[in-house]
Amino acid sequence: MSKKVIYVAGLGLIGASLALGIKRGHPDYEVIGYNRSDKSRNIALERGIVDRATGDFAEFAPLADVIILAVPIKQTIDFLEQLAELPLKENVIITDAGSTKKAIVDAAERFLQGKAVQFVGSHPMAGSHKSGAVAADVTLFENAYYIFTPSVLTTETTIPELKDLLSGTKARYTEIDAAEHDRVTSQISHFPHLLASSLMEQAGAYANDHEMTNRFAAGGFRDMTRIAESEPGMWTSILMTNKDAVKERIEDFKGRLDRISQLLDTNDENALWEFFEHGRQTRKQMEIHKCGGVESFYDIFVDVPDEEDVILSILELLRGTSLVNIRINEENREDISGILQLSFKNQKDMERAEKIISEKTAYSVSII
Amino acid sequence: MSKKVIYVAGLGLIGASLALGIKRGHPDYEVIGYNRSDKSRNIALERGIVDRATGDFAEFAPLADVIILAVPIKQTIDFLEQLAELPLKENVIITDAGSTKKAIVDAAERFLQGKAVQFVGSHPMAGSHKSGAVAADVTLFENAYYIFTPSVLTTETTIPELKDLLSGTKARYTEIDAAEHDRVTSQISHFPHLLASSLMEQAGAYANDHEMTNRFAAGGFRDMTRIAESEPGMWTSILMTNKDAVKERIEDFKGRLDRISQLLDTNDENALWEFFEHGRQTRKQMEIHKCGGVESFYDIFVDVPDEEDVILSILELLRGTSLVNIRINEENREDISGILQLSFKNQKDMERAEKIISEKTAYSVSII
Repeated sequence: MSKKVIYVAGLGLIGASLALGIKRGHPDYEVIGYNRSDKSRNIALERGIVDRATGDFAEFAPLADVIILAVPIKQTIDFLEQLAELPLKENVIITDAGSTKKAIVDAAERFLQGKAVQFVGSHPMAGSHKSGAVAADVTLFENAYYIFTPSVLTTETTIPELKDLLSGTKARYTEIDAAEHDRVTSQISHFPHLLASSLMEQAGAYANDHEMTNRFAAGGFRDMTRIAESEPGMWTSILMTNKDAVKERIEDFKGRLDRISQLLDTNDENALWEFFEHGRQTRKQMEIHKCGGVESFYDIFVDVPDEEDVILSILELLRGTSLVNIRINEENREDISGILQLSFKNQKDMERAEKIISEKTAYSVSII
Repeated sequence: MSKKVIYVAGLGLIGASLALGIKRGHPDYEVIGYNRSDKSRNIALERGIVDRATGDFAEFAPLADVIILAVPIKQTIDFLEQLAELPLKENVIITDAGSTKKAIVDAAERFLQGKAVQFVGSHPMAGSHKSGAVAADVTLFENAYYIFTPSVLTTETTIPELKDLLSGTKARYTEIDAAEHDRVTSQISHFPHLLASSLMEQAGAYANDHEMTNRFAAGGFRDMTRIAESEPGMWTSILMTNKDAVKERIEDFKGRLDRISQLLDTNDENALWEFFEHGRQTRKQMEIHKCGGVESFYDIFVDVPDEEDVILSILELLRGTSLVNIRINEENREDISGILQLSFKNQKDMERAEKIISEKTAYSVSII
């Protein structure tokens, strides 16, 4: 391909990290950026994340061969509407980075159909607790799913060209219908988020009348409510643009809760046991245990004694490996287990670590 | 106190660990044990966890000054009924270790009232992924809540005597009405467990029709369903003995889900934002962030770069501290944050670690 101009609109964590990935794969491309605020724009310029930057979205749009909208969902839709009125390059590829896809794909089709543009929805499934261009990280999407959701404006070459453009991100590409994307994410992300926030709301209210509530909250409760601390604005937008799927999951879930109430009313111990056992088996069989779902890490579990500096002694053995996470799962009788869990970026390092620990320590090691 | 005979009925993880705690605090006491199966009985004898052991519960009961029932809830109730018929020592103290308390306290009062025995319910809130006498650990209850739930058979001296007996466990004692214990644990443990198993059941069913469900499940989903892998038998018993409180939480929760559906129907974005923000603030204010609830740890958070051996370099600085847990929270745009989280057993070590890391590295450190 000839020298291309890539326009990344939105230089927050996602946009700036995508820009870095593009530059890694295609150092000869010109990457230009939009950001409303000065701050991320200046950081992006200083760090060389973009070659030029503007605070006026319309200004750079006509220059681009590819436009990546990495702004909040509502603004993405606004920008799609604006793009319909701008003198874009013929056959420009437009995509986004939003967490819900149907509303965005619909907007693209509504505003852009009939024009000489290509559009495909994108959901790069990664992120960080950090935000802004200052946190931009070329490795952010490594091994993460990068999901394409085609539209009527997607041609045979749209996705292959984007895959090439984004090759430096080292993401794992996949393709799914936008509505199906939203259904699947309603089940494994949006609705669970509602559950976590609702449980937190409920426990907060309960604590007003039952003062020991907060004191007795243990590891299980902590894990289940962790995501309730997420940024409310983003989650509001996600829910507002995925109403039907989420409402359907709510109704389905209420039916499951009702069934448990009935089992309790009828003292149906066997069915209750089956319910718990079924949940256990379902989770054990999930990909979650294979390569960590989206994170795609490789984990080993080491049964370590509760002794001073035991973690240090193991990490010393593993010096130089691609260790990406580590935790001792909390010990709690009513929760499940955990021991020292070590996550690696690749299988080779995982296997090497298992071998080293097996050989050099007396601790038992397992791979799940 | 003179040389006492302590009878621990049930030499699983909890019973055997309590026995070790008793021996640590009172090496002169005789600790005798019951276990149905040979295996844990023989391990307990070999490791010196108990001085004598039986496979016949009734055999040792008349010898004891204190009887601790560390068996499943149903068997605890059966044993209380049996104890009513046995020639026990006058004023013997009887307690248990079950996860629900009202059913057990009621059974004790029903079977034992009018007899010369003392009874108080106990819930030592700790545990492990391991099980059996083989996993017995004298430190299992250190800093964990050990909850007493009084009955009409609890005298002024019952709890003080048990506190003395169990001083070697180094648990944190607290006292609460049995029904209130069950209400509080319904909110922070039993009902959340149902939520996790129901979510797993729901996602499993959804995956049958939506094949990407398992593949896209990320860190948030993983955290929320972790406890769904717990042992089904124990959880069935817990729910069957805490029906009313759990059913009440189910009904309350359905109302909260309905309200979210309504907010979606009416496009009430502000109220939805408030809902998420409220959950976030409630969790931030929970004791969970102070001393970790039940775990009672002291945490610091270090903002570390994604570089090889960065954890190792920090642990080298912290050599010799009481570090009890460590984790890097997963990076995921749709989850909340986390950075390197280090948990210490006491405030002094936490403060020392914060000072060392601030002084010797360029990473920012915070205490939440």
